[in-house]
Amino acid sequence: MVTIKDIANRLGVSVSTVSKGLTGASDISENLRQLVLDTAIEMGYKSKKMKKEEHKKLCLFVENMEYSSSNQFGYDIVLGFKQSAYRANWNVTVTPVTPEFQMKEKYDTYMLKNGFSGAFILGLTLHDPWIEQFADTTVPTVLFDNYIPKNSNVCYIGTDSYEGIDLAVDHLSRLGHRRIAFMNGTPYSMISKQRRQAYITALQNRGLPVDESLIAHGYYLAESAKYHVPDFIEMGATAILCGSDLIASGVITECQAHGLSVPGDISVIGYDDLPISSFLNPPLTTIRQDRVELGKCAYTSLSASIDHVSISRTLLHPQLITRSSTAPCRVS
Amino acid sequence: MVTIKDIANRLGVSVSTVSKGLTGASDISENLRQLVLDTAIEMGYKSKKMKKEEHKKLCLFVENMEYSSSNQFGYDIVLGFKQSAYRANWNVTVTPVTPEFQMKEKYDTYMLKNGFSGAFILGLTLHDPWIEQFADTTVPTVLFDNYIPKNSNVCYIGTDSYEGIDLAVDHLSRLGHRRIAFMNGTPYSMISKQRRQAYITALQNRGLPVDESLIAHGYYLAESAKYHVPDFIEMGATAILCGSDLIASGVITECQAHGLSVPGDISVIGYDDLPISSFLNPPLTTIRQDRVELGKCAYTSLSASIDHVSISRTLLHPQLITRSSTAPCRVS
Repeated sequence: MVTIKDIANRLGVSVSTVSKGLTGASDISENLRQLVLDTAIEMGYKSKKMKKEEHKKLCLFVENMEYSSSNQFGYDIVLGFKQSAYRANWNVTVTPVTPEFQMKEKYDTYMLKNGFSGAFILGLTLHDPWIEQFADTTVPTVLFDNYIPKNSNVCYIGTDSYEGIDLAVDHLSRLGHRRIAFMNGTPYSMISKQRRQAYITALQNRGLPVDESLIAHGYYLAESAKYHVPDFIEMGATAILCGSDLIASGVITECQAHGLSVPGDISVIGYDDLPISSFLNPPLTTIRQDRVELGKCAYTSLSASIDHVSISRTLLHPQLITRSSTAPCRVS
Repeated sequence: MVTIKDIANRLGVSVSTVSKGLTGASDISENLRQLVLDTAIEMGYKSKKMKKEEHKKLCLFVENMEYSSSNQFGYDIVLGFKQSAYRANWNVTVTPVTPEFQMKEKYDTYMLKNGFSGAFILGLTLHDPWIEQFADTTVPTVLFDNYIPKNSNVCYIGTDSYEGIDLAVDHLSRLGHRRIAFMNGTPYSMISKQRRQAYITALQNRGLPVDESLIAHGYYLAESAKYHVPDFIEMGATAILCGSDLIASGVITECQAHGLSVPGDISVIGYDDLPISSFLNPPLTTIRQDRVELGKCAYTSLSASIDHVSISRTLLHPQLITRSSTAPCRVS
């Protein structure tokens, strides 16, 4: 077991300096504090607080995702994770993060200082400062919709993007649609890249044309529809596949504002199956992600990682929910 | 709840005919028996035996894989699965299967007749008769190293092939090897296809030449080495990456028979980390698959599927185990 003295010996500083570094006292320099923490992590040091609380505290970081009400995408994921974690007597701290927050403190340092045994992390983009650090973190970590190769401490959890997009394109192409536009989520996201690739592959597998002018980013915002839907209509789209139900709700409104009937003139299909989907006018056909189960599976994978079983990825099957926003194509 | 009478009404036959079909009595035709069973499955019928034993019986099918002793690849997978299943009070029946066995009876029919709630299936090739049937099976099913898209009842479990091959190629390329041969497993296997693609990608990512004459199938047999190693040597290979430790053991023997020192003249790297790896001469550098955990994760996924949580895939991280069969490349 590594002691404070071992760290002091390694660094050639006094025990009290190490102690100050670990507790975050203000009378040592920031550089020295970071060096002490880095060395403690490297040597596998555990504080009394950590040992006492070991297997007790998990952190759930959230960025770019709403989760405070049951209408919102993150709500059920957080719920499912907490349900599973509480059953196994873990405390879960939900911590919103920003790029600035990540710049302030290294991921491993934050986890050590706060005595967390592992984390489940939602909504980070490829730009986020911590993403690079996950390549060699020693902390058990589960990422929603992000994949870090070859670090046995990090697991990717999500819904199979290829299956989801293929289900949607398959449904539309069986209805006779050939000009299927795609309003993807945000750029700089692994999932958007996967879905874009899946969309292109799904069209090609069915002999449908790929037309870059039918692809746009909707940023998971309903408002984004007005920037792209008019172009899609002009380019002859008879169906619009959306990266989220929120985007789809904006797309339906925008189509109707252009005097088009959904699904009479144009079919719209969402992604996620949020509670709002069945209340839209018309009720939305969508690709369901089982968010409670995503949260539960995230806990299962994190728990495995803490027990030194290293899962690379766990993906759920999506499901096509057929409602009234899709119909046979009228254009021949 | 579907009754025998419901099935009889649907088919327009008597209750006793349905009953005979379900129990496998000999005085109805094979065609009628199959029709009764197919209809029962389609309607979601559960026999008294199944209801009584529900959540009690799982089947573990094995083909093309040795599992009777701890030296063999399948042993720990079967062990891990049983350990987890027994803890949850399931009975597990291990059933060896062949293509002939699969031809005799449909998968769903076999499962219904024998009262199994789900199955974990090891070692099937892409040729196997049941593979096609998995596309629309209604039985919770976990496949080792096989992936069936878009059936929410079927889960793929395995070790991440891309990471595994990349770890091996990375290790060899850091040692200066540029002519890395690949002795893959069997053809007609999803994993062999994945590994082949991963090998090519890994070479390309490092600017190493891809040479088809350095790729062969070793069929997971040590004996296969003598058919390919002489060619590899002649083609200037300085390292041979093998699809299993068994293949690697044959490759080492064959290299030595040609007067080459391993790793002095040629490096050899295995796959799996079977117990034999550390006893080979020289001890084998290999890519570890955690087989006990594969079995346990298979149970977790199967259990989720039985509870209507549909996991598409769960992949474990592989691990590079460095022993003495790899060394810096001498050829400049």
